[in-house]
Amino acid sequence: MGIELYYWPGLQGRGEFVRLALEEAGLAYTDVARDPDGGMDAMMAAMDDPAVVHPPFAPPFLRDGKILVGQTAAILMHLGAHHGLAPRDEAGRLWTHQIQLTIADLVAEAHDTHHPVDAGTYYADQKKEALRRAAAFRTQRMPKFLGWFETILDRNPDGPAHLVSGAVTYADLSLFQAVEGLRYAFPHAVGRVLKRAPHVAALARAVARRPRIKAYLASERRVAFNTDGVFRHYPELDDPV
Amino acid sequence: MGIELYYWPGLQGRGEFVRLALEEAGLAYTDVARDPDGGMDAMMAAMDDPAVVHPPFAPPFLRDGKILVGQTAAILMHLGAHHGLAPRDEAGRLWTHQIQLTIADLVAEAHDTHHPVDAGTYYADQKKEALRRAAAFRTQRMPKFLGWFETILDRNPDGPAHLVSGAVTYADLSLFQAVEGLRYAFPHAVGRVLKRAPHVAALARAVARRPRIKAYLASERRVAFNTDGVFRHYPELDDPV
Repeated sequence: MGIELYYWPGLQGRGEFVRLALEEAGLAYTDVARDPDGGMDAMMAAMDDPAVVHPPFAPPFLRDGKILVGQTAAILMHLGAHHGLAPRDEAGRLWTHQIQLTIADLVAEAHDTHHPVDAGTYYADQKKEALRRAAAFRTQRMPKFLGWFETILDRNPDGPAHLVSGAVTYADLSLFQAVEGLRYAFPHAVGRVLKRAPHVAALARAVARRPRIKAYLASERRVAFNTDGVFRHYPELDDPV
Repeated sequence: MGIELYYWPGLQGRGEFVRLALEEAGLAYTDVARDPDGGMDAMMAAMDDPAVVHPPFAPPFLRDGKILVGQTAAILMHLGAHHGLAPRDEAGRLWTHQIQLTIADLVAEAHDTHHPVDAGTYYADQKKEALRRAAAFRTQRMPKFLGWFETILDRNPDGPAHLVSGAVTYADLSLFQAVEGLRYAFPHAVGRVLKRAPHVAALARAVARRPRIKAYLASERRVAFNTDGVFRHYPELDDPV
């Protein structure tokens, strides 16, 4: 049985960070909830199965042989260790994971720009609060996060082409995805911030050109960004033009 | 040179999850920002040192020999692997970490109950929004999180006394701290929810009785909960009495 990814169909969301790693590693996988032989029923059955000893809290989760693992960063740590997307030494792996956790924080804060007070109701029900949270995100948090990524790229002893060492890791792929998401959600604000983060912008361009990623992005496996995902484009939440 | 913990003085915050692991492991450590020979200047100097190749994004961070590591969950993964607070096998370590990441999500959401729209301004400036976010947290999110912890304790093949295997891990310590924080911040709401999570309540009691934890909690090293930390008691954010 090959690798199975379980994630909500119809949106990129947090599952997309896992898809990018699976694609870059060249692994065969089934995207269960989107598969004709699977679907949402199969995903919910896997999540709610009372016989599962390690049930995930929420999608995404991944089945890889005997391992069933949830939490995006934990899934990536597993894939990184077994499929060449992280350094072999322990210190390098820890640093890669530390970066991933910081990307996860950025992603969670980007999500909360459109759902600041209740993840269980619609954006329209919290639009006023969203305007305020998005302003703080655009002016304070996004520059701080992207500034930190720029700093660590600048300090990488192996050069600024990668976050860790001189080779691609899952952290590079995730930073690409975060930048793409911010570009979709906040095109004006991120353009302003990326001018001061040229290494980050260059890394995102380089990841998009990697042969397997390029092929993936052009395929029907890549869901388009939309307003069901973590990153959502609501023009009123971006910088005023 | 011994282990150095860097975290904001005067509050428990995310640093407390690291302190509990250091204490349970019986490790000698310096809490730099609270140390007479250190202080905030020493912490900021360590964080902003341009010679640091792996700078942390934010406190807490830990220096352990040559390792400088930030992000609470990454710090705990490091301590768990080297100081007996995680299983030895890879699958057990990954599961422990997956649980920790879910605790981290709970903690982040607990924080956002009092800072739903702008982490850079005061609670008083977002009290109306906080009332709404706290209601969603108490009624939807807290029961979902604590329910998941109850489920995985119930399914642990080694029994419900520990989250992972039959021994204490950093995840047990962190769940104790999360429960303590929720008890401080939302005493009425958490009492209601814990009635349906008896394994979680029992685990928290058992951790508090562990000799090193008990000694730590009674020492001056344990900062009291207060309204500067992640968990804050504002009666208006709890269940109406």
